Amino acid sequence: MRLAMLGLGRMGGNMARRLAAGGIEVVGWNRSRETADALAAEWDRISAAGTMAEAVEALTPPRVVWSMLPAGEATEAALMELTRHLEPGDIVVDGGNADYRESLDHGRLLGDSGIEFIDAGVSGGVWGREEGYCLMVGGTEAAVGRLEPALRVLAPAPDRGWARVGPVGAGHFTKMVHNGVEYGMMQAFAEGFDLLERKEAFAIDPGQVAELWRHGSVVRSWLLDLMADFLGEDARLDDIAPWVADSGEGRWTVREAVDSGVPAPVLTAALYARFQSQDERGYQARLLARLRQAFGGHAVRQGGEAE
Amino acid sequence: MRLAMLGLGRMGGNMARRLAAGGIEVVGWNRSRETADALAAEWDRISAAGTMAEAVEALTPPRVVWSMLPAGEATEAALMELTRHLEPGDIVVDGGNADYRESLDHGRLLGDSGIEFIDAGVSGGVWGREEGYCLMVGGTEAAVGRLEPALRVLAPAPDRGWARVGPVGAGHFTKMVHNGVEYGMMQAFAEGFDLLERKEAFAIDPGQVAELWRHGSVVRSWLLDLMADFLGEDARLDDIAPWVADSGEGRWTVREAVDSGVPAPVLTAALYARFQSQDERGYQARLLARLRQAFGGHAVRQGGEAE
Amino acid sequence: MRLAMLGLGRMGGNMARRLAAGGIEVVGWNRSRETADALAAEWDRISAAGTMAEAVEALTPPRVVWSMLPAGEATEAALMELTRHLEPGDIVVDGGNADYRESLDHGRLLGDSGIEFIDAGVSGGVWGREEGYCLMVGGTEAAVGRLEPALRVLAPAPDRGWARVGPVGAGHFTKMVHNGVEYGMMQAFAEGFDLLERKEAFAIDPGQVAELWRHGSVVRSWLLDLMADFLGEDARLDDIAPWVADSGEGRWTVREAVDSGVPAPVLTAALYARFQSQDERGYQARLLARLRQAFGGHAVRQGGEAE
Amino acid sequence: MRLAMLGLGRMGGNMARRLAAGGIEVVGWNRSRETADALAAEWDRISAAGTMAEAVEALTPPRVVWSMLPAGEATEAALMELTRHLEPGDIVVDGGNADYRESLDHGRLLGDSGIEFIDAGVSGGVWGREEGYCLMVGGTEAAVGRLEPALRVLAPAPDRGWARVGPVGAGHFTKMVHNGVEYGMMQAFAEGFDLLERKEAFAIDPGQVAELWRHGSVVRSWLLDLMADFLGEDARLDDIAPWVADSGEGRWTVREAVDSGVPAPVLTAALYARFQSQDERGYQARLLARLRQAFGGHAVRQGGEAE
Repeated sequence: MRLAMLGLGRMGGNMARRLAAGGIEVVGWNRSRETADALAAEWDRISAAGTMAEAVEALTPPRVVWSMLPAGEATEAALMELTRHLEPGDIVVDGGNADYRESLDHGRLLGDSGIEFIDAGVSGGVWGREEGYCLMVGGTEAAVGRLEPALRVLAPAPDRGWARVGPVGAGHFTKMVHNGVEYGMMQAFAEGFDLLERKEAFAIDPGQVAELWRHGSVVRSWLLDLMADFLGEDARLDDIAPWVADSGEGRWTVREAVDSGVPAPVLTAALYARFQSQDERGYQARLLARLRQAFGGHAVRQGGEAE
Repeated sequence: MRLAMLGLGRMGGNMARRLAAGGIEVVGWNRSRETADALAAEWDRISAAGTMAEAVEALTPPRVVWSMLPAGEATEAALMELTRHLEPGDIVVDGGNADYRESLDHGRLLGDSGIEFIDAGVSGGVWGREEGYCLMVGGTEAAVGRLEPALRVLAPAPDRGWARVGPVGAGHFTKMVHNGVEYGMMQAFAEGFDLLERKEAFAIDPGQVAELWRHGSVVRSWLLDLMADFLGEDARLDDIAPWVADSGEGRWTVREAVDSGVPAPVLTAALYARFQSQDERGYQARLLARLRQAFGGHAVRQGGEAE
Repeated sequence: MRLAMLGLGRMGGNMARRLAAGGIEVVGWNRSRETADALAAEWDRISAAGTMAEAVEALTPPRVVWSMLPAGEATEAALMELTRHLEPGDIVVDGGNADYRESLDHGRLLGDSGIEFIDAGVSGGVWGREEGYCLMVGGTEAAVGRLEPALRVLAPAPDRGWARVGPVGAGHFTKMVHNGVEYGMMQAFAEGFDLLERKEAFAIDPGQVAELWRHGSVVRSWLLDLMADFLGEDARLDDIAPWVADSGEGRWTVREAVDSGVPAPVLTAALYARFQSQDERGYQARLLARLRQAFGGHAVRQGGEAE
Repeated sequence: MRLAMLGLGRMGGNMARRLAAGGIEVVGWNRSRETADALAAEWDRISAAGTMAEAVEALTPPRVVWSMLPAGEATEAALMELTRHLEPGDIVVDGGNADYRESLDHGRLLGDSGIEFIDAGVSGGVWGREEGYCLMVGGTEAAVGRLEPALRVLAPAPDRGWARVGPVGAGHFTKMVHNGVEYGMMQAFAEGFDLLERKEAFAIDPGQVAELWRHGSVVRSWLLDLMADFLGEDARLDDIAPWVADSGEGRWTVREAVDSGVPAPVLTAALYARFQSQDERGYQARLLARLRQAFGGHAVRQGGEAE
């Protein structure tokens, strides 16, 4: 099999390597040509294209073009350009973290040109190249069937870790929910380790507990494996700032909960904890402190202190 | 009527003044004698006692001793001492913010000496002296009946704003729930005004909106009246630190929810928002940032930034 | 002043009455003609129009047309039709509970025809006719200035309870946040009264406490006034089903929190509590019960029981 | 090594079997003698004792007595009785799910008689017999050192899955936090699968997704393994009632969060979701529905419907 991979960053580059190692030929394109050339120099089965048009020309119909470009503008622009180069029967896979509603739009847009669209949610992070990726795929059965050789290589094992979960949109929807669950699990652990760490009387070592819980406990999990690694080296985390980024999927999951009337208190609390970490103004707390002063005469701290 | 008031701080001092203004004679005792003397000099109907024993001696059985001492050690010590000076048939009122479980203990302790115990939850803050206090009273009907002349003066009106809500313990229990609700209402407003303030495109003035909502809206309330006052003067609150104290009642309310199996997501979220404002370590956020780095290679901010 | 009122349901009908009582002439239109005729028969200053076109014709430019139609399709259709009948310089007011983003669109749509758009969030419910409405108004200063005679009549007092809070969109935005705060306050009270009601040992009467808290307490508010009324008559609420509707504003407020990165745990918990009351499937709880069985051998209840 | 095991129910019985299979001799006692006899008949290395005194007598000092009795009264009574039969230098292990504060008391109580106390949090459920248990152990280093042969057998591997995490109390504290995290993780998955299941347009199969996520995804975990098993067989769960029990540890974790000022929104939301599932009265929802009716004239459903 032979496919084009657009976007050779942390995710796309490693996926290209895993594909090549698994016998798939990859035509790589990247915004900066050097990245594609370096990758092509590294692997026999990877070649570099200077433009998307070249990447498409390097394939034989029916083509498969897999995009790992950032969701939003970059992906939008690529899809628009691809409609000019591809032919009916070709397949475009979006493996980025797109909003599933946009993927539904993209499916319709490409479908108007007779091009098949597949939305593939990809989980695995920096570990995927070695351990394989979890692939949540949305699209027609026929299109996903044609993609199968690549999916079998990218997944942890040929028959495990990839699946067509539904029609176009279902792939990114499932990935969105996956990330929502991930937020909740992460926050559950964060609260638990905070409780352990705060209990000075017991002088518990969070790193020891993380390692302990990996064996035989109910909470054993891959996230815990990772935590045992880094907490074992540094449980205090003094060099890490208490600031947590959030990504689209977490927000979209809460929006989905609201739109569909599904109570999601844990997934939402996890998102809000990140918002809290990002909030440098503290307006809510200022207002509460001022209001306590107003009704109870309680002292407030002056503004500079907590900043 | 004549009663002793123990503790003449912000709450006790103003209550003594309101009682005196309403025709009740008050024997005041305070840890620092000067406060009692100053109050006695201010009001004809207030006299100062140098010791609790003197305060008790200045009354005629059956006596009424009202404590506005801080909950915890100060109240415990006072109750123990009062058991030595009082006689069966006397009444002790605890108007402080005690845990209702402790008040149940106190009722039993004093009851062993034949002394009646009344737990009176008092709301009203610094405004109570002028506007009257809301009094949630627990105790026997007979005891509360004897306290009625004082309750009628302390309340906003003789027949409104005070009530016997149940047996001993019920007063502080009701006050605890009151404060829990107060936490929830305050946080609801804090979130709402934060949303308004953050919406730069509309340049909404939170002070104007607070004043506006006071008239005809569903959220009109005394807390809103206070907010309209101070937000009208300074809506940015830049001089107030984003640090909010919490008191026993908020924590006890959540403990009660947990013990009784009542879901209380709003009251608890309000308490946790205050904990968050007090948290200077940010361990949870550090852990999350580190974990994101571990699985996804995401950048973390270095430790010094957010402190 | 003379204006047209479109939609004479619970809100629009009462607003027309209050306007008429205050000296404003109203041309009323309603989907069902009978409602308009009945209202016109009731009040001298109200006349009935059979079509929107007739309502517009009954006014002299520059006209004011106030819509109290339901948000969504009915409002959309009315605005489209009005663009055909109105002229540059006329004003359309949308007093319904529209999403502020749609109001921004409506402002642009009408602006293309030279028609001024005002979005007016209206609070007050069934009590507004007697007590006056709280009006949160978005639009240009000039347009709102022309609407002022009507606003002064609708509000609780000529100079209070109405305000221009910002440009087009700001009115419905402020109303959205108002309702979010309302959700949070309501849920805070619901949790508090549940805690009181569940404490069997004290046999506390929620109706008595609601009335008590109205006087001098920190939580006194209009919502509490209403609760004191109905809890005083029936504190058990056995005839009310535990099912709570939610409206657009609650959902939009949470969406706004998510979009703007403002943590809103209380407003969101209040929304989710309503979702929970609406959930007849209980899938989350079924999954948890099954999972506990799977890892711990814990018994589950059979399906029929809890339905 | 030889030890006595008190309580041979689901947990204690399987632990006795795993110990015996690993070469440890076990003297078993159970409230109902038949259970002990049956276990002794099953395994050479297990013998049955008719009373706790007999169990103690069957051991040679310094003895090890491991209790797997239910926390609370049964454990309290056993510890009191053991103080009468044991001698200084003997060890009592409490492997039940006790409140760590009680374990601190138990440590002091037994310490007064010179008996060593070890609190061992045990995770692993019905799978522990085959896969081994995770053991979080609190006690002196010397005492835990003497228990090591048994811990090595009970754990999944001799050097993994057990650890002394701190002094007496630290074992049950760590187990409490473990279960709190477990609650949070479970609820995160429950919300996620609810979102998937509710999205009718995609007809996603939760069982397929659970199996898919097990391979290469960020949320892979033992809980997910279990879910993949049972959702694969029955994703609808129609025969399971939406009623979820909660245990002491979940409540204690929230109490700990409140006492120590650690915000724990996710762990608490998970507990409250269970409370919600247990609530058959729906008082909060009734109150909200009634209040909406009072201010907005909104219809309520009659009481019988939702029960």
